[in-house]
Amino acid sequence: MAKGSAKAKVAKLKKKVARLKAELGAVATAPAADGGAKPAKAVSPLAPASFPALPVIAGAEFASVGAGIKYQGRKDVMLIRLAPGTTIAGAFTRSSTRSACVRDDQAKLAIRQDTGVGAAIIVNSGNSNAFTGKAGDKAVQDVTRAVARALDLPEARVFSSSTGVIGEPLPAERITAVVPDLVAGLSEGAIKGAAQAIMTTDTFPKGASAVVEGVGGPIHIAGIAKGSGMIAPDMATMLVYLFTDATIPAPRLQKMLSRYVDESFNSITVDSDTSTSDTLLLCATGRSAAEPVTGDVAKAFEAALRAVMLDLARQVVRDGEGATKLVEVRVTGAASDEDAAKVAFAIANSPLVKTAVAGEDPNWGRIVAAIGKSGAEADRDRLTIRFGDILVAEKGWRAPSYREEDGAAYMKEPELVIAVDMGLRDAKRTVWTCDLTARYVAINADYRS
Amino acid sequence: MAKGSAKAKVAKLKKKVARLKAELGAVATAPAADGGAKPAKAVSPLAPASFPALPVIAGAEFASVGAGIKYQGRKDVMLIRLAPGTTIAGAFTRSSTRSACVRDDQAKLAIRQDTGVGAAIIVNSGNSNAFTGKAGDKAVQDVTRAVARALDLPEARVFSSSTGVIGEPLPAERITAVVPDLVAGLSEGAIKGAAQAIMTTDTFPKGASAVVEGVGGPIHIAGIAKGSGMIAPDMATMLVYLFTDATIPAPRLQKMLSRYVDESFNSITVDSDTSTSDTLLLCATGRSAAEPVTGDVAKAFEAALRAVMLDLARQVVRDGEGATKLVEVRVTGAASDEDAAKVAFAIANSPLVKTAVAGEDPNWGRIVAAIGKSGAEADRDRLTIRFGDILVAEKGWRAPSYREEDGAAYMKEPELVIAVDMGLRDAKRTVWTCDLTARYVAINADYRS
Repeated sequence: MAKGSAKAKVAKLKKKVARLKAELGAVATAPAADGGAKPAKAVSPLAPASFPALPVIAGAEFASVGAGIKYQGRKDVMLIRLAPGTTIAGAFTRSSTRSACVRDDQAKLAIRQDTGVGAAIIVNSGNSNAFTGKAGDKAVQDVTRAVARALDLPEARVFSSSTGVIGEPLPAERITAVVPDLVAGLSEGAIKGAAQAIMTTDTFPKGASAVVEGVGGPIHIAGIAKGSGMIAPDMATMLVYLFTDATIPAPRLQKMLSRYVDESFNSITVDSDTSTSDTLLLCATGRSAAEPVTGDVAKAFEAALRAVMLDLARQVVRDGEGATKLVEVRVTGAASDEDAAKVAFAIANSPLVKTAVAGEDPNWGRIVAAIGKSGAEADRDRLTIRFGDILVAEKGWRAPSYREEDGAAYMKEPELVIAVDMGLRDAKRTVWTCDLTARYVAINADYRS
Repeated sequence: MAKGSAKAKVAKLKKKVARLKAELGAVATAPAADGGAKPAKAVSPLAPASFPALPVIAGAEFASVGAGIKYQGRKDVMLIRLAPGTTIAGAFTRSSTRSACVRDDQAKLAIRQDTGVGAAIIVNSGNSNAFTGKAGDKAVQDVTRAVARALDLPEARVFSSSTGVIGEPLPAERITAVVPDLVAGLSEGAIKGAAQAIMTTDTFPKGASAVVEGVGGPIHIAGIAKGSGMIAPDMATMLVYLFTDATIPAPRLQKMLSRYVDESFNSITVDSDTSTSDTLLLCATGRSAAEPVTGDVAKAFEAALRAVMLDLARQVVRDGEGATKLVEVRVTGAASDEDAAKVAFAIANSPLVKTAVAGEDPNWGRIVAAIGKSGAEADRDRLTIRFGDILVAEKGWRAPSYREEDGAAYMKEPELVIAVDMGLRDAKRTVWTCDLTARYVAINADYRS
C-alpha cells in the first residue's frame, strides 16, 4: 500500500466518521467516567450559560455528598434543613405505581402540619425506590428516621425523594451512613450543590429565583429542579424544590402552588412518559423581615412564584434527553380547555412532529395529523397553523403566501413556536416540548447497560 | 507518516465507522436511487422470507403502474376491478383531519350498495391528499370519475385511497393520465404488483391468504396491506385491501369486518401517531363455486378472515419504521376491557420501553412506570410481569427467582412477549408494537427533505 493512498484512506474514513457522528446527533461515544454506565454527557445545546446566582433563603440550609448509590465520584444525596415555622406545600405524580417516598410524603402532608419544629427534605439520585415492595417502604422509614434523629425532628416532618432506576432495592444504609456528613455540611449558601446532587440524565443543574417587595422588607423565592427523561404531564413530573422566606400559612401555600402547577410543570413533555417519583415541594420559612403575605404583595408574590415555576419547567425541557430544539406549542380557539390540552399534547407528544423538528423539516402535515388524532373537536376549514409569525396553513389548505423555504429557514432556530388556532371558541393552552433525536434513543437504549 | 502507523490508523477508523454504523441502527447512508429523497431502504430484519403465493380471487383483477406522483422509477398507482355482484365493507381512520378520499369512501359506503354493476378501487402512494381543502375533494372526484368512465361504472362504486405526504396538492392529472394503462393491464394474477405500488416507507410488500372449504367448493381469502409509519390504533390504521370469492351480503360482510378490526389492526402501534388516510376495504366477489356463506362455513370463514387480518396487522408492525424487534404485549387480569387496553397501549407506546427493547435492556422498571401512568386501576402488590416465560416481578417486587442475565438473554430474541397480569379481574388485551431505534428518527427526520 503506497503512503499516499493510505493518507487518502485515512482522510476519507475521518470524513465518514464525522458524518456518522453528525447523523447520530452527536451522541458521545467516549466511555463515561463511571465506567461506561451511561453515554458521556454533552451539555444540552439549549442550556443556559451558567447556573444562576440564587438568593439565600433565610431558614433553608443545604448540604450534598456522594454516597455511591449508583454513580461513583459525584454527589448523589442532598439534605435540606428548614427552620422552625416553615410551612410546606406539595404536588406529586398521579402514577398508580408511584414510589414509596412519594406515598410517604403524601401521607405526611395530608395531616395538619406541626410547623413549630422545622422540617427536612432528603433526596437521592441513582435509585427511585419505586416498585420495591415492602422493602421500599422500610427503606423510606430508615432514611427519614435517621434524618429525624440527627436533626431532632419528628419523623412526620422529614420528607424524602428518590430518583433513578425503578425496581432495584434502595441501599438505604448508604444514605443513612452519610447523614452525619450531610448535617455537618448544612449551609444556607449551598443550594447549587443540592441542584447537582439530584441530577440523573440531566446535563446541567437547574435553578431560578425572584425577589418581591414585601411590606417591611424583600421576600425571596429560589427553586431547583431536575429532569430530564420520563417527563410528561401528570402532576409535578420531576423533582422540584421551591423555597421562600415569605410568611404564608400552609393551606394558602398549597393553594398557590396548585394554581400554577398546571400551566408550568403539567405543561411540559419530553417523551410522554410519566415518572413514578415526580415530586414538587414548596417551603416557606417565614424568615423574611416582611410582614405576612397579603393583598397586593400576595399578588406580586404569586406572579413571581409563577415565573419561577415556568422558568424551571422550561429548563427541564431544555434538558430533555437528546434535545436540540425547544418547542412551544400554542393552541388557541379550541372548543374547550380539555380540547385545547388534547391538541397541544397530541402535537407535543407526536414522534412524527418531534422527529421532523429534529430534522429541521417544516413538515406541517404532521401537525395536521396530530390535531386529527387528538380527539378534540376540529374543523379542517377553520384551522390556522403558524411557525412563529409565518402563516403556514389556513382554511383547510396551505396558505397562498406560505413558501417552503421560509418554513425551512425558521426550523433552523433553536427555539420554535408552533401556533395552532382551531377557529372554534376561546379555549387555549400552551405547552413546551423538545425534539426527538437519535441521541434520545441512544441515551435510553443504554441507560442501565 | 510511517506506512505501518497509517495502516493501523485505517484499521482503527474502520472499526470506528463500524461502531458508529451499529449505533445508528444500520441506517443506510448511501443516497437513495431517487436522488436522495429518502434514506435507502434496507429490508426490515423482521420481514418474512418472501411475498407469499396468494390465491387468485375470481372476480378481482389488479394492475399497477408508475405515475411519478412523488417517487420516480417505481409503481405508485394501482387499480382493482371487482366483478358485478361484489359486496364491499369498510373501516376507516377516525381522525378529524382525515383525507378527502376517506370522506368520499365513507359517503359511498353509507348508501345502499348497488352490487349488480361491479366496483373499482384506485390507490396512489406519494401523496395523501389530506388537508388539501376543496382542491382535494375535486382531485378525488377527478380520479374516481376517470376510473368510472374507463370501466363503465357508476361513480358511487369507485373507491379511492391516497397515502403519502400531507398538505401537498394531489396531482390528479398524473393519475387520470395512467388510467388507460391501468385498465389495459388488469389481471387476476397481478396482486403482488398492487401490494408494491401502495408502499411508502414500507420495506417489503405485505400479503396473506387463507382457504376455507365451502359447500360446493373452496372459498379463498387474499389480502394486501401497507404500513409503516404513522401507525396507531384508531381504526384501520393503514391501507388494507381484503378479497374473497365468497358470497356474502354487504351488511353481513361489514359485521364480520368490524368484529375483527379491534383485535387486529386496532391492536398494533408503531409510534402512536394515527394517519389521516387509514382505510380497510373487504370485497366479496361471490365468484366461488361454493354456496353463500352460512352456518359452520360462516364460522370457518370468519376464523380464516380473522387469521388473515391478524397476519397482515403483524406484518405492518414487522415493517415498523426502523424496527428490529416485534413485541407482543399481553395484558391479563385487568379490571375492565378499557383498562386492559389502556395498560397494553401505555406499554406499547412508551418511548422508554421501546428504546429499552431497542437496546436489548430488560428494563422492566419502565414497564412498571408505563402501567402506572396508564390511568388504569392497578395494585402494585398484585402485578405480575413476565418476559416470555420468565417471571420477572410479582407482589410489588422483583421475583426472587429472576436473574438479570436471563432477562438480558431473552431480550436478544427478535420476537418478544411482555406479559402483564394485573391480578384484578378477567379483562385482557393483546397488542403488538416494535422497538424505537435511531433509524426511526433518521427515517422521519429525513422523510421530506
